[in-house]
Amino acid sequence: MIDKRSIQIALPAAITPLNKGLGSFDRALDADDIAKLNWNLLREDLNLPTAVLYQDKILHNLNWMRQFISAYGVKLAPHGKTTMAPRLFEMQLQSGAWGITLATAHQTQVAYAHGVRRVLMANQLVGKQNMAVIAKLLPDPDFEFYCLVDSAELIDQLGTRFSQLGLRLQVLLELGVDGGRTGVRNDQQLQSVLSALSRWSHSTVLCGIEIYEGVLNDESSIRAFLECTVQVTRKLAAEDRFHRTPILLSGAGSAWYDVVAEVFSAAKFEFPVEIVLRPGCYLTHDVGAYRQAQARILEHNPIAHRMRSGLVPALHVWAYVQSIPEAERAIVGMGKRDAAFDSGFPAPALHYRPGRITPQVTPSHWEVTKMMDQHAYLQIEPGDDLRVGDMIAFDISHPCLTFDKWRTLPILNKDYQVIDIVQTFF
Amino acid sequence: MIDKRSIQIALPAAITPLNKGLGSFDRALDADDIAKLNWNLLREDLNLPTAVLYQDKILHNLNWMRQFISAYGVKLAPHGKTTMAPRLFEMQLQSGAWGITLATAHQTQVAYAHGVRRVLMANQLVGKQNMAVIAKLLPDPDFEFYCLVDSAELIDQLGTRFSQLGLRLQVLLELGVDGGRTGVRNDQQLQSVLSALSRWSHSTVLCGIEIYEGVLNDESSIRAFLECTVQVTRKLAAEDRFHRTPILLSGAGSAWYDVVAEVFSAAKFEFPVEIVLRPGCYLTHDVGAYRQAQARILEHNPIAHRMRSGLVPALHVWAYVQSIPEAERAIVGMGKRDAAFDSGFPAPALHYRPGRITPQVTPSHWEVTKMMDQHAYLQIEPGDDLRVGDMIAFDISHPCLTFDKWRTLPILNKDYQVIDIVQTFF
Repeated sequence: MIDKRSIQIALPAAITPLNKGLGSFDRALDADDIAKLNWNLLREDLNLPTAVLYQDKILHNLNWMRQFISAYGVKLAPHGKTTMAPRLFEMQLQSGAWGITLATAHQTQVAYAHGVRRVLMANQLVGKQNMAVIAKLLPDPDFEFYCLVDSAELIDQLGTRFSQLGLRLQVLLELGVDGGRTGVRNDQQLQSVLSALSRWSHSTVLCGIEIYEGVLNDESSIRAFLECTVQVTRKLAAEDRFHRTPILLSGAGSAWYDVVAEVFSAAKFEFPVEIVLRPGCYLTHDVGAYRQAQARILEHNPIAHRMRSGLVPALHVWAYVQSIPEAERAIVGMGKRDAAFDSGFPAPALHYRPGRITPQVTPSHWEVTKMMDQHAYLQIEPGDDLRVGDMIAFDISHPCLTFDKWRTLPILNKDYQVIDIVQTFF
Repeated sequence: MIDKRSIQIALPAAITPLNKGLGSFDRALDADDIAKLNWNLLREDLNLPTAVLYQDKILHNLNWMRQFISAYGVKLAPHGKTTMAPRLFEMQLQSGAWGITLATAHQTQVAYAHGVRRVLMANQLVGKQNMAVIAKLLPDPDFEFYCLVDSAELIDQLGTRFSQLGLRLQVLLELGVDGGRTGVRNDQQLQSVLSALSRWSHSTVLCGIEIYEGVLNDESSIRAFLECTVQVTRKLAAEDRFHRTPILLSGAGSAWYDVVAEVFSAAKFEFPVEIVLRPGCYLTHDVGAYRQAQARILEHNPIAHRMRSGLVPALHVWAYVQSIPEAERAIVGMGKRDAAFDSGFPAPALHYRPGRITPQVTPSHWEVTKMMDQHAYLQIEPGDDLRVGDMIAFDISHPCLTFDKWRTLPILNKDYQVIDIVQTFF
């Protein structure tokens, strides 16, 4: 899937000394040069705050998801919007991913420029320049691309544009739910979309069906939605609406991929179907919403239950204690500019005093109680052994909104040595 | 203040086709080349979503703040963390700013690399690499730098490091409040800091006093804190603790700068004092917390009251309507990856249908009710004239957390033509 020979977009993708969270260097470097600089986090070679990935944990999570996906015989197109890091896309594809899911034309262009050649854009393609970006990539015979449609209005716009260009756009019908996000809600909307697809059959090619169950909050509603999706797939297959064999059937964000895998693979379609799941956050995991989701999966899903361990948090934001102005409050140099805060604050995980041998697990009563743009309030207890200049590693909630705060994230080995680096392209 | 001749850090600061929100181009360009591409937002030359700045509104806000600051005879060091855009720092300095305020060593390095030569780092400088970054810049005789101290522990660390290097670090004493962020709370802490400064007098030079009143929420507490700050300044001046003439006295975020200007300038110190205010968000303004703050300022501050108009929102995020799946709901291609959401959702401002002459003000009942990573839910009414592919401009709340979602922001003239571009360095 990674074919760097045909990259057509010039990339000045150098890592510059002006990226935050790195060590000292004087000129722009390529990612491959970073390991040679011999930076070590515990030696304070990095400029804190910094967001780092742990290689062993990333590999663990990659393997865990590969095993899970294989057990169901389904395909994985991890959502790349989470990290927007082509180096991680490459690791995901090398670990057996079928393709990369993305959310926008811009993201697709970034992935393409770094060699990704199969993209499921789990979103509508709207607007002149967004269509132009995709139109520029489609002539590459090695590039396989799908995007969503959920209205006749959009299909008319796509059909007009892509037929003018003499291009065929592969689309998936998105089904939605009342009160949800995108996606057709009812049979009237469905028929309208199907008619539009017929009108533009030379330029818009229906290849399958897509849903995002994550707009629902409870398992029974999700199962009902999935069953309905299976029925619509059967119905449209019977009407010979699809122009791809196997038919693509895609669902699953990072919280309910187990249920989607179970229901879709249990459907036993009487025609060839390629089931593609799209979780994105499994790679780094978190200690917020996705840890909760994973606990449910480990408890209830028979395959996950049999695997020896679950996903592990693989991303830390490290920061310095910069002031301890009150006996129960430390101020840490990490804020909303550095870590997600929208589904729970970062949680202290490790404490390290420069000069010591190794970080220690933080006391369980340490807790972030407030975040400002560049600061976090850390609640401690009087007498806790904490000093200005100490380093704290924070687990995070919501990896997506943490990754997009960083242009570069060092990858560490178990000795906290920087052995690689990923660049993000938000 | 801008001296580009002495830049010592190599900058591959090219704008690449992989930045989101731009038009079509094939190779990395310098910012100066962007205007030549003749992009126009209304012609759909930009890839939406995009965050844009309006030149006339930016200039209006620059002038407004210059007049306000001049009327009080104080100095302005706008907080650069908001935008982290050197092109905007340059405009602020050309508009009379005394210097740029920043929050971290990394941010200081970015500003220095782009020619800024006077920085008030309104934060503690903590950790080996952060100190190294600043130590590398200090030998430049044209570079003037201040950072904060609020503990003997930190001063001991700074003193040790900077005396080893034979450098003198100019510091401001930070005063704080109980329950607040950083800053000394009481006389005991104050004496401890002053003793440490005496111990390290050859390497840490006390130049003034700094506060951040924004940790308090009501005007009377803020006024009391400011009065206390004035008293401490007088006391330490009488003790001859400061080694700068005039003494630096700095306060003010983007919400209470009027009160800080008023109280500090009314103090009538009997010794030379340079009062430096640090609002950052005035440049783009917003329609959330800062609009509320501005309303209070326009109503109560006599100088602002006399000026003909207030600050105006100068930043829009433009996005496409991608689906209208229900009569009362449109889904817009703009999410938490594109705009701040922590102090109010973006607010629809303009509606434009490609092909029409000009954007229209949006109906007042249109409202963003939810944001996901890449989508916003827009509440509309049945029968509203809205279509898939229409463009909507959103005013935003909290410019800081919007800027850091974008690596490049086009600057538009009144005809929506791209006439310049700013790059951010988060």
